[in-house]
Amino acid sequence: MTNLSILGTGNMGQVIASVAAKGGHNVQQLGVDDLGAPVTGDVVVLAVPYPAVADVIAQRGEQLAGRVVVDITNPLDFETFDSLVVPADSSAAAEIAAALPQSRVLKAFNTTFAGTLAAGNVGSLPTTVLIAGDDADAKATLAAIVTSGGLKAIDAGSLKRARELEAVGFLQLTLAANEKVSWTGGFGVAA
Amino acid sequence: MTNLSILGTGNMGQVIASVAAKGGHNVQQLGVDDLGAPVTGDVVVLAVPYPAVADVIAQRGEQLAGRVVVDITNPLDFETFDSLVVPADSSAAAEIAAALPQSRVLKAFNTTFAGTLAAGNVGSLPTTVLIAGDDADAKATLAAIVTSGGLKAIDAGSLKRARELEAVGFLQLTLAANEKVSWTGGFGVAA
Repeated sequence: MTNLSILGTGNMGQVIASVAAKGGHNVQQLGVDDLGAPVTGDVVVLAVPYPAVADVIAQRGEQLAGRVVVDITNPLDFETFDSLVVPADSSAAAEIAAALPQSRVLKAFNTTFAGTLAAGNVGSLPTTVLIAGDDADAKATLAAIVTSGGLKAIDAGSLKRARELEAVGFLQLTLAANEKVSWTGGFGVAA
Repeated sequence: MTNLSILGTGNMGQVIASVAAKGGHNVQQLGVDDLGAPVTGDVVVLAVPYPAVADVIAQRGEQLAGRVVVDITNPLDFETFDSLVVPADSSAAAEIAAALPQSRVLKAFNTTFAGTLAAGNVGSLPTTVLIAGDDADAKATLAAIVTSGGLKAIDAGSLKRARELEAVGFLQLTLAANEKVSWTGGFGVAA
């Protein structure tokens, strides 16, 4: 059993909480009004939109030291839907890792819509959470949470692969926004 | 019925030829020994590895003027499997389009392994060819070839999205090389 803190109470925060609870883990969920409550989880999911991450780091950066921090963001320019707002050779996860040098940062959950995390499938394929990061133990801990909650998990490599995961998330969002796929579909992973 | 030329006789060239032939299209397949034979197809698939594209353009660039040119490459650094060899803010497709200003360049087939094009499915999902490009008619022509051959096709947006398609292809290749998915699996698309 892992102690998990989820910062954010939106769709993604709720469904990740639900997956973890289903797996029997302790879940602390904190919203913007809970600034007084310290983070207690060994694994902390930043379930806020990318533009809000800087505030969370400013507010809670010290609390995140020593913990596994999971970045789920898709740092799109939502005005144009035509690019990301992070440098082309970097990623939101890399920027967060640079800002939190005492945390073990993972990228995960950004390639799975909330609807597919809730349903457990992407069309006829089981929902698979792709996890990138530089710390094997941290990745294994998160993968165990995901699989105990009934989903599949794949180690997608080092944190450098967050760049590709964010490209997948970006592309998938444009496909859904353009009604090429539904918000309960998108990219599935076949073993 | 469309006249299709495929430059390249490897796995991908063969299977794309097979898909097009199944759809009732005329297929001309040209290998490295066929330099004397002019390209005749209205749609030309560059089914060669990325490092060979520059040679093909040098040899046949003038013949490609006025035609739809399909880039299927994944421009990986195959020594490190850790990056692409094109600039981070660009794509192989964008570079090919710049080199062939009189062709209508599309990106397609780089997110589908040869095995999934041949089988018609990615696990339990139908194989879907993602097509990016700036010319709607060219995309529709290629999509018609793909669907007539029994596969699905999705318009993935402008040629700028080739950057994301190449990230998907890159990530998928690393997952297969690391045995996280098989060469007959990978990313499927659920509507």
